[in-house]
Amino acid sequence: MTAGGAEVSGYRPSSTGSRWGEGTELIVEIAQRAAQQAGVFLTARDVERLLAALQVTTNIWELAQRSTVPLLGICSVLRELIDRNYVEVQGERLRLTEMGEQLCRRAGIVPVRSVRCPSCHGRGVDIGVLGEVRDEFLKISADRPSAIRDYDQAYLVEEASLARVAFLLGKGDLEERDVLIIGDDDLISLAAGLTRAPRRILVLEVDERIVGFIRRVADRYGLPVEARVYNVCDPLPEELCHEFDTFVCDPSESFGGLTAFLTRCLLGLRGAGAAGVFGLSRHEASLRKWRDVQRWLLEREAVVTDIVAEFGQYHNWPYYREMRAWPLLPVHPVPERPWYQSCLYRVELLDRPHLENVPFSAEIFMDEEAATF
Amino acid sequence: MTAGGAEVSGYRPSSTGSRWGEGTELIVEIAQRAAQQAGVFLTARDVERLLAALQVTTNIWELAQRSTVPLLGICSVLRELIDRNYVEVQGERLRLTEMGEQLCRRAGIVPVRSVRCPSCHGRGVDIGVLGEVRDEFLKISADRPSAIRDYDQAYLVEEASLARVAFLLGKGDLEERDVLIIGDDDLISLAAGLTRAPRRILVLEVDERIVGFIRRVADRYGLPVEARVYNVCDPLPEELCHEFDTFVCDPSESFGGLTAFLTRCLLGLRGAGAAGVFGLSRHEASLRKWRDVQRWLLEREAVVTDIVAEFGQYHNWPYYREMRAWPLLPVHPVPERPWYQSCLYRVELLDRPHLENVPFSAEIFMDEEAATF
Repeated sequence: MTAGGAEVSGYRPSSTGSRWGEGTELIVEIAQRAAQQAGVFLTARDVERLLAALQVTTNIWELAQRSTVPLLGICSVLRELIDRNYVEVQGERLRLTEMGEQLCRRAGIVPVRSVRCPSCHGRGVDIGVLGEVRDEFLKISADRPSAIRDYDQAYLVEEASLARVAFLLGKGDLEERDVLIIGDDDLISLAAGLTRAPRRILVLEVDERIVGFIRRVADRYGLPVEARVYNVCDPLPEELCHEFDTFVCDPSESFGGLTAFLTRCLLGLRGAGAAGVFGLSRHEASLRKWRDVQRWLLEREAVVTDIVAEFGQYHNWPYYREMRAWPLLPVHPVPERPWYQSCLYRVELLDRPHLENVPFSAEIFMDEEAATF
Repeated sequence: MTAGGAEVSGYRPSSTGSRWGEGTELIVEIAQRAAQQAGVFLTARDVERLLAALQVTTNIWELAQRSTVPLLGICSVLRELIDRNYVEVQGERLRLTEMGEQLCRRAGIVPVRSVRCPSCHGRGVDIGVLGEVRDEFLKISADRPSAIRDYDQAYLVEEASLARVAFLLGKGDLEERDVLIIGDDDLISLAAGLTRAPRRILVLEVDERIVGFIRRVADRYGLPVEARVYNVCDPLPEELCHEFDTFVCDPSESFGGLTAFLTRCLLGLRGAGAAGVFGLSRHEASLRKWRDVQRWLLEREAVVTDIVAEFGQYHNWPYYREMRAWPLLPVHPVPERPWYQSCLYRVELLDRPHLENVPFSAEIFMDEEAATF
């Protein structure tokens, strides 16, 4: 059900009234071919989203950001569009050709528009509520270890980490709570700890450098933050099961990786009314994977209370040239601004779920949509 | 699965470390008794949310808004809290007693906080993108028919209707799209029509007054908007099935009513990549109902792409004294500001779902959580 493959769906115009002119069929065909070639899930609407974004940018990273199409899907759709002369490569830039512009007109595909609130960047939360925590956190995170590929690391921009903490505060998930954070290269523990709101924050993190960093800062500032080395493939230690009110994580995006993180996080929660947040992108997770994740959560008593699009932006990671998608990209400009972003999910438990606390193999971290690992 | 009853869940502190002191058990007990008495789903966290909101307001409507606890649940929890002397009634106001404040301290329940962005009110979208449409829409909606109980009407405040249109624009769900709106007392059709972005907007609406109003305005302004009288209990006319790219609705909140609206809306969509938005409250829908709705959607190929909390606020409706919850409220102040609010869901189809286009009985509009009908 969740595994990859070349399935594809397209709009199916009814016999009595097709939405588009001849553009429709062509776009469905491109989606199908691209999906087959890349072995990822794509719909005609993904091709459309890409064409909508190609009308506002020539930069591949901005294209990924604005289109919200899975990155490996972008690579294969672009190959189709270039082969068919709808898109041309100019140096490191991508441009719609005259034919490409005609296709957009025929198919009624208009430029993508941003309607984000300029004050909160569309997140809906005011990080001003954090007061001095903001400056302290910026100072602290300037010294953090750099992201490494071994652990699939990419760091949220500081403003996004702070926004996540403000979001948790607004939900009542932080003050007087016991908070479990699994994987904390984003340093949410420190931002949350600086608010002095939680009762306890426990970080489980695979990277010793980050564990050490968090411990040192927590010690220096006297924060209620502990950090331990932990690999999510290992069962959650018994004494941590059902001990927390809130979880935070930013999981790997293979379906196996995602559900491994979420299994440990849900195991950590006390029961009904306990809640948690995590990031999920569109770059490495198709909407089919989103469906599978949502179904997985609902089957485990976790109802989704919020999904805020594009809540988190990530610093570019130093190892971007080694990522899986790199050789598949039609152009290779250096990413100059953050482009990778994730949506923020919040879930709340209706009951304590039945979950097996078994080991996972390291293979769970790869699936057909994984692009940056 | 979805029907009501007095089920209840509470935090279940583990043997090795309870989150709260003695407050915990008391709060679980109050949740259980209140759930049994009201026959609605409540968790201990709902009691906690109410106590958190009672620390910032004495007004019952603001309490409903800030706590996000189902309204009938609020009535029954308040009855328990008043009986046990944790809350007292002073005229039309509700106040935590000394004992109530102690309970909050013991149980670690802090005042609810707002972290909403002041510019966009937490919606994340900038309605400034709509330009003059805003003023035109405000002028038009000043003359609309008033909300009546016969059709369970309550109107979104104009700013929220506009924000919904901006949101759709940002998702690419409006421009060059065929849009189906089922139930449009919020006049989304007119706001969307004024943008001149959609190819076609069809309103299906049960209230002849609103159909007439929309037709007159569409005619006067030359908008691509049609409106027809339609009762959601009737099958969607064959010629409208699979003819639309986008749906919009603001359904009744009984599970039967919700899924009736959504059935007709999904039937109207062309297939994969087509999308839609609807509002869902917390006032008349517990998180258990949310779980059921999410499950229902996923089983019908609709993945949830966005859930934006408190996106829509509603004008108070003139018939509020006749609503089901009224006699159950412990106090009866006149609601002076909008308090009822809904969250915005957006879904996108992965494929065309299998749906039966059968008639529904009028009984679907009532369930155990319905409070305002």
